[in-house]
Amino acid sequence: MARWKPTDYNPDDFANRRHIGPSPAEMAEMLKAVGADSLDALIEQTVPQAIRQERPLDWPALSEAALLARMEEVAKQNRVMTSLIGQGYFGTVTPPAIQRNILENPAWYTAYTPYQPEIAQGRLEALLNFQTMVADLTGLPVANASLLDEATAAAEAMAMARRQAKSRADAFFVAHDLHPQTIAVIETRAAPLGIRIVKGSIDDLVPDQVFGAIFQYPGTYGHIRDLSPEIAALHQAKALAVVATDLLALCLLKEPGAMGADIAVGSAQRFGVPMGYGGPHAAFMSCRDELKRAMPGRIVGVSIDASGNQAYRLSLQTREQHIRREKATSNVCTAQALLAVMASFYAVFHGPEGLRAIAQRVHLNAATLAEALRAADAEVAPGAFFDTITVKVGVGQAGILAAAEQRGINLRKVGRDRVGISVDETTDAGVIARLLDAFGITDCARPATAPAIPDELLRDSDYLTHPVFHMNRAESEMMRYMRRLSDRDLALDRAMIPLGSCTMKLNAAAEMMPITWPEFGALHPFAPRHQAAGYAEAIADLTDKLCEITGYDAFSMQPNSGAQGEYAGLLTIAAYHRANGDQQRDICLIPMSAHGTNPASAQMAGMQVVVVKSAPNGDIDLEDFADKAKAAGEKLAAVMITYPSTHGVFEDTVREVCRITHDHGGQVYIDGANMNALVGLVKPGEIGGDVSHLNLHKTFAIPHGGGGPGMGPIGVKAHLAPHLPGDPCEGDSGAVSAAPYGSASILLISWAYILMMGGEGLTQATRVAILNANYIASRLAGAYPILFMGNRGRVAHECILDTRPFAEHGVTVDDIAKRLIDNGFHAPTMSWPVAGTLMVEPTESETKAEIDRFITALLAIRDEITEVAEGRISAEESPLRRAPHTVEDLVAEWDRPYSREQGCFPPGAFRVDKYWPPVGRVDNAYGDRNLICTCPPLDSYAEAAE
Amino acid sequence: MARWKPTDYNPDDFANRRHIGPSPAEMAEMLKAVGADSLDALIEQTVPQAIRQERPLDWPALSEAALLARMEEVAKQNRVMTSLIGQGYFGTVTPPAIQRNILENPAWYTAYTPYQPEIAQGRLEALLNFQTMVADLTGLPVANASLLDEATAAAEAMAMARRQAKSRADAFFVAHDLHPQTIAVIETRAAPLGIRIVKGSIDDLVPDQVFGAIFQYPGTYGHIRDLSPEIAALHQAKALAVVATDLLALCLLKEPGAMGADIAVGSAQRFGVPMGYGGPHAAFMSCRDELKRAMPGRIVGVSIDASGNQAYRLSLQTREQHIRREKATSNVCTAQALLAVMASFYAVFHGPEGLRAIAQRVHLNAATLAEALRAADAEVAPGAFFDTITVKVGVGQAGILAAAEQRGINLRKVGRDRVGISVDETTDAGVIARLLDAFGITDCARPATAPAIPDELLRDSDYLTHPVFHMNRAESEMMRYMRRLSDRDLALDRAMIPLGSCTMKLNAAAEMMPITWPEFGALHPFAPRHQAAGYAEAIADLTDKLCEITGYDAFSMQPNSGAQGEYAGLLTIAAYHRANGDQQRDICLIPMSAHGTNPASAQMAGMQVVVVKSAPNGDIDLEDFADKAKAAGEKLAAVMITYPSTHGVFEDTVREVCRITHDHGGQVYIDGANMNALVGLVKPGEIGGDVSHLNLHKTFAIPHGGGGPGMGPIGVKAHLAPHLPGDPCEGDSGAVSAAPYGSASILLISWAYILMMGGEGLTQATRVAILNANYIASRLAGAYPILFMGNRGRVAHECILDTRPFAEHGVTVDDIAKRLIDNGFHAPTMSWPVAGTLMVEPTESETKAEIDRFITALLAIRDEITEVAEGRISAEESPLRRAPHTVEDLVAEWDRPYSREQGCFPPGAFRVDKYWPPVGRVDNAYGDRNLICTCPPLDSYAEAAE
Repeated sequence: MARWKPTDYNPDDFANRRHIGPSPAEMAEMLKAVGADSLDALIEQTVPQAIRQERPLDWPALSEAALLARMEEVAKQNRVMTSLIGQGYFGTVTPPAIQRNILENPAWYTAYTPYQPEIAQGRLEALLNFQTMVADLTGLPVANASLLDEATAAAEAMAMARRQAKSRADAFFVAHDLHPQTIAVIETRAAPLGIRIVKGSIDDLVPDQVFGAIFQYPGTYGHIRDLSPEIAALHQAKALAVVATDLLALCLLKEPGAMGADIAVGSAQRFGVPMGYGGPHAAFMSCRDELKRAMPGRIVGVSIDASGNQAYRLSLQTREQHIRREKATSNVCTAQALLAVMASFYAVFHGPEGLRAIAQRVHLNAATLAEALRAADAEVAPGAFFDTITVKVGVGQAGILAAAEQRGINLRKVGRDRVGISVDETTDAGVIARLLDAFGITDCARPATAPAIPDELLRDSDYLTHPVFHMNRAESEMMRYMRRLSDRDLALDRAMIPLGSCTMKLNAAAEMMPITWPEFGALHPFAPRHQAAGYAEAIADLTDKLCEITGYDAFSMQPNSGAQGEYAGLLTIAAYHRANGDQQRDICLIPMSAHGTNPASAQMAGMQVVVVKSAPNGDIDLEDFADKAKAAGEKLAAVMITYPSTHGVFEDTVREVCRITHDHGGQVYIDGANMNALVGLVKPGEIGGDVSHLNLHKTFAIPHGGGGPGMGPIGVKAHLAPHLPGDPCEGDSGAVSAAPYGSASILLISWAYILMMGGEGLTQATRVAILNANYIASRLAGAYPILFMGNRGRVAHECILDTRPFAEHGVTVDDIAKRLIDNGFHAPTMSWPVAGTLMVEPTESETKAEIDRFITALLAIRDEITEVAEGRISAEESPLRRAPHTVEDLVAEWDRPYSREQGCFPPGAFRVDKYWPPVGRVDNAYGDRNLICTCPPLDSYAEAAE
Repeated sequence: MARWKPTDYNPDDFANRRHIGPSPAEMAEMLKAVGADSLDALIEQTVPQAIRQERPLDWPALSEAALLARMEEVAKQNRVMTSLIGQGYFGTVTPPAIQRNILENPAWYTAYTPYQPEIAQGRLEALLNFQTMVADLTGLPVANASLLDEATAAAEAMAMARRQAKSRADAFFVAHDLHPQTIAVIETRAAPLGIRIVKGSIDDLVPDQVFGAIFQYPGTYGHIRDLSPEIAALHQAKALAVVATDLLALCLLKEPGAMGADIAVGSAQRFGVPMGYGGPHAAFMSCRDELKRAMPGRIVGVSIDASGNQAYRLSLQTREQHIRREKATSNVCTAQALLAVMASFYAVFHGPEGLRAIAQRVHLNAATLAEALRAADAEVAPGAFFDTITVKVGVGQAGILAAAEQRGINLRKVGRDRVGISVDETTDAGVIARLLDAFGITDCARPATAPAIPDELLRDSDYLTHPVFHMNRAESEMMRYMRRLSDRDLALDRAMIPLGSCTMKLNAAAEMMPITWPEFGALHPFAPRHQAAGYAEAIADLTDKLCEITGYDAFSMQPNSGAQGEYAGLLTIAAYHRANGDQQRDICLIPMSAHGTNPASAQMAGMQVVVVKSAPNGDIDLEDFADKAKAAGEKLAAVMITYPSTHGVFEDTVREVCRITHDHGGQVYIDGANMNALVGLVKPGEIGGDVSHLNLHKTFAIPHGGGGPGMGPIGVKAHLAPHLPGDPCEGDSGAVSAAPYGSASILLISWAYILMMGGEGLTQATRVAILNANYIASRLAGAYPILFMGNRGRVAHECILDTRPFAEHGVTVDDIAKRLIDNGFHAPTMSWPVAGTLMVEPTESETKAEIDRFITALLAIRDEITEVAEGRISAEESPLRRAPHTVEDLVAEWDRPYSREQGCFPPGAFRVDKYWPPVGRVDNAYGDRNLICTCPPLDSYAEAAE
């Protein structure tokens, strides 16, 4: 058998073949450069032995094919029904062109948040379209680029009203016909902030006693009424009015702005985004012009670039990157960008004519139902409605719900004697017939032709008047528009995104596929649980695996961002202390180097933040920590630490910090932001953590989507488990999201990742992430000082390059970041956690070739800095300052002291496949001075072109 | 109800909202430019009243959502089983990254055949990878870029052997263990060419009596043997040897080239391409170097561009564009580009290590099965095999087949007493256990470790040694490579492709979605029919609709290209004449203006071609036609006409031509190439046609895939129906493809198109296609002479721009085509049907804005021609000749008499979103002189870069 050479090459090994970048041969070369004998040796030198977990993670890895087969099995356990439950979630048709070209397209879903505007003009335009759409439909001039869900948007609006209202009252009025989950989240948020919630029917409102009020329009049971009188009364009392509303309804109904509302919030889900058993979807917020600078979340604005051409950017960006720490009342730092983009394209795709037609169809179908039911002597409410009615069914409630379910339809259980019916875009004559049949009505329904909306509540103003909503809607044109926008952006499908603390790893195609299967997409979050057995199985297994990975005992999947995870975790701690009778425990110790969301979350959870000093090497100053813990004593609620630290170092003292905290009766919150350096090596729950959130969109492969979605579930030790967030739908206390499992559908991505990697693969990923970071540190150390190497001269999974020494020559960190664009790279994290530095995190998914290209780029940039430092060229005239270079620069007169070749093809850049930014360096100050947050009129494009 | 304004805007109207480009307002403007009062009036002026159909097409249109719901219902009627039938079709795993980024990505699937190499470097590289892969694995130095299926590839090889062999024998030997469908197609092809087929076991071969022989290796029942002695004997007799083979087997087995084979053929299906109930997949062909210029199909080669940089192109291209008309023995002019690209990426994705590992696993699983069966005393053959065995089951055959099916497994029925089992990449321990259970073997199979392949048949040579097959295989790297290649190309997702006669219309996302559902993808073409009830329903309804559209009575879905449709149609006519005792009818009249495939197909069908003259206006010379029909008399077999003519004109005389033909006993073949000008207006079966093929990849929305797949089903009147191609699997006579429904899975695309458009929408599409063409003709008539306007001054759905007047100034049609690239457009069809012209077909899918951009570009080019004509710039120095311009041109020294701005941003080009070709004008002559058809070594890239 001389020629038969058995192979141990396993082509199905997803972890080592597909997910992890460097090949074994590449790793050997990299270890040599790093000066480590083996990967084991490097990990020994990097991760303190004292904290290493004992048992390795040990579940088997699935191949891609096996994963998809498993997913199919699980999918089949979900039953897709027609859900007419409403309550903020509706059936919708995702236009196939949008599904294919946005949701399933890595050019869109792998992009990062558009902090670097020059490489993000495409999604910035799409998000500006979203803002314009929201502003137009709500009738309020300024909108943000999305929030996490309607319930948190409502809670944010409450906090914003409190900041902005001149009223000194401490109460916030909540109309009783808000969606129950919205009320639950508002109540959660209000308590620690000392806000008193007054619930009641609108007629109970006493404007003098509140700083603000929120109404739902249409109400959760379908009611619509003109809120102008109540809003006027609130204004009279110097209080603010928030209206939770529905974009499709506003295509027909008088808009909140026309009623005088100060703030509008809601969900854009029904604009083409699948329900996904709860999410992700984009919530929206808009407000009066006077309030815009108080609005939470991201706002896309219009500015100009270095040549004076129009360019988009995130406005007022400093707000977000430097969350107001201890003074914060919001910790929002994520949006639902991908879903906002989808919703905006849905509006472009249909235009105002299409949206109005859909709204009319929905309304007339609801009216048809109401008439047919009334004709059968049913008691139907309300008289005026958009899409939702309730029917009094008395003791027959359970029977009707069951009869409908037998016919494939979910209705809403309302109180003890009513059912709710919400009509949506997908409701057709067949659904209406089946539904009436469930009520025993077999006559064919007579289609309604007249609206059940009083004339004065019908909308009288235009919307979506900007040309983008009136472009030709042929699919060829739409497809090309989507392609053009995506081509303007630089995402993971073209290059490494070495963003420290953001863990931009591979989002594998196999992980993404199941989320667009209808069995996962079409489930209503409040559908009967037995219809979601597939989800239950997936979430249960994901929970088991995450417990195994973290050493925690229980998880809540509710928080749908990292910051919300922090907040939920601290609320859990607070609830635990309360349950123990330790109400006084309200001090939260946070190291100086913490991410800004840490103190903001603590503040929102009703805790006082006490800052702990850092030692010169970046570690926590253990002495200061011990002193402050002791000083807090019986008031110590929690300590929040990040591990490895935000400086990218495995601190040896972590167990000691946990011990001291526990000695004083406090709880340890370990921020999971850097979990990608721990999985398989260290379990936060074993080294002293009581609670952590995990950024599933970092460590567990959910794509960043151009700035969301994310998921931030929290794990806790057993003693905290009873205090985890309650079910929002059941009105349980402590709910932090609108849906019980947050953005449930994308949990499948993390589950798929964990299943395909297997325990061993996950561990290897962590090790290679550390190798990749140390390789970069080793290769660049001669050119850029590396901050915060650990005791043994190793970094963790990221490294910080110090660029402050170049400041004296006039070269800024911005110059380096923009010059990286010329090299075809997204910049590393800038000026965080230390101003004037770049934090680089390659992740395990990048290959040696791509990392080498990045190193080549940074070394070439270093040479350019030397040119400046040695006076051969001024900083102002250097390619660093003139970066990024555009094709327009090439075509224009070239009067620079360096060549076109040098400017445009620095050594890191591809030649044939070079990425060209569509604009030059964007002027941030100009944009903030001239805040424009909706699509600029067409003539401004013409002007800019001139 | 003052504010309630009912709308008749229907957002679900796929035909008018999504598929058809111009909006009603745009159409009004266009009609004005055309000088027609209404669309009705324009159609009146264009399409002769005499031939218009009476009843409009009248089935209802489905919305996208309704279409997908219908498709899901149909999908559920197919039963996906594990098919171990083999016979050329195997289960395979499509890597999700390839599915998402190639098969489901419009940048790949909407591209045209790479005739314009400057805008096709990406897919040319992928196809060169394919050729390299095939050449390496088969051990023959030259491979083409794919053929339609294995069976037609084998028939092509036979024809090639006949052309090239020095032997004067008239017989071709076919080994009895070829796949039955391959034998069927070879027999079909041989008869009209006068080739005698000798079938027998290999030992029956008498080399002196044949000009060539074909062997299957491994054989259809699994046998493998060293064919070197037989091949040597053939060579001795000056005959050629063809080996039909399997790429996966060749990862382990001695390659045909090493046995001395002259030609190898086979299917690349199992390299990651779903079975799709028969296709599409890429067949391959490779040959000895001496035979390369005789090889049919496309060959990608390496050349240089105007700056001397390496560039890819189609080699020996003139062969294809000018098919050898009457002297042809092949009419191949389509490939399976998209599927070849997928297969090539499968090889890049796995590399030789992965492929070898997969092959070993497949083989050892087969060996495991054989051992387990033998251990249970079953009679298993053969002794030496790769993946396929047969088991003697005697009278238990039906029982075993049923028992396997009950366990979810399809086996092959072999003779009366055996079953065949073919193991594939997806076969795992579970499948083996279930299969053994069907044989009553419940013991756990002991995995084989030793091969059942004799040492001398194990491969001893390397393969896939080129670096592209050794690049890092991490998904990030793969994804980026796929993106980079696609970015180099210009496809419909970025711009109109105004190719006359190619009908590059929208390929809607909703139409594409179902084809990657497993219920359609995973079906074996020879699976029991009851498992394919969904396909049966789809094909039956598609047939009904196509009959309604064309006025024919029956359809064969077998031909999987237009040319193959022609051939099948003529065979049908010949069979009809034979059945009537009219064997002598062998003359086929073809107008001079016909597409080159027409005479080639007639020749292949055993007919003599007699050419009919054209009148000066491009119409058929009716007098000449009548004379020649009369002269043919009782020998008249058929006339082939295209309608509207290849000149884009509705000839008034078509009924007369048909009448004369019928009067002489001939049959009328109406080429369906221009069906996009007829649907809903004219039925070829009503105006006198007896048979037509339809290019489903033109008129019925199957994407071109960068040069395939296509489908060319034929419709016939009832009298011809009994003579349609037989079932290849059943060995029926007249089979033209390997599978009974050709590339069955893409029939779903056309069906989806027809269902969503509805009868009315299809008709409107035809009308708008005619409007769009006439609009272009009207707008450009002042700048370019328009050839062949009809009697009433109208063109049909395309128009011909005459560029011959510019020749005297040195401006060529090529210059205009390449200058269009600078404007961001694919060139129109060049020099066909008239040399020195451009034929423009916008299709109905293009919007006025895109058409106007095209007109702007052509008018600007006309101005540039004037500059040359008036002597202000020489042709050589003009931007026309220097086109296309690349970024490299911008970076380099600029020594041209026009500005960079003028060169790179002509008026049709987008500014921010400009498409940049990766190479300058490609040198065709250089490439043909230096024919290189496999990936060039890496140092040649380095050289080119220097």
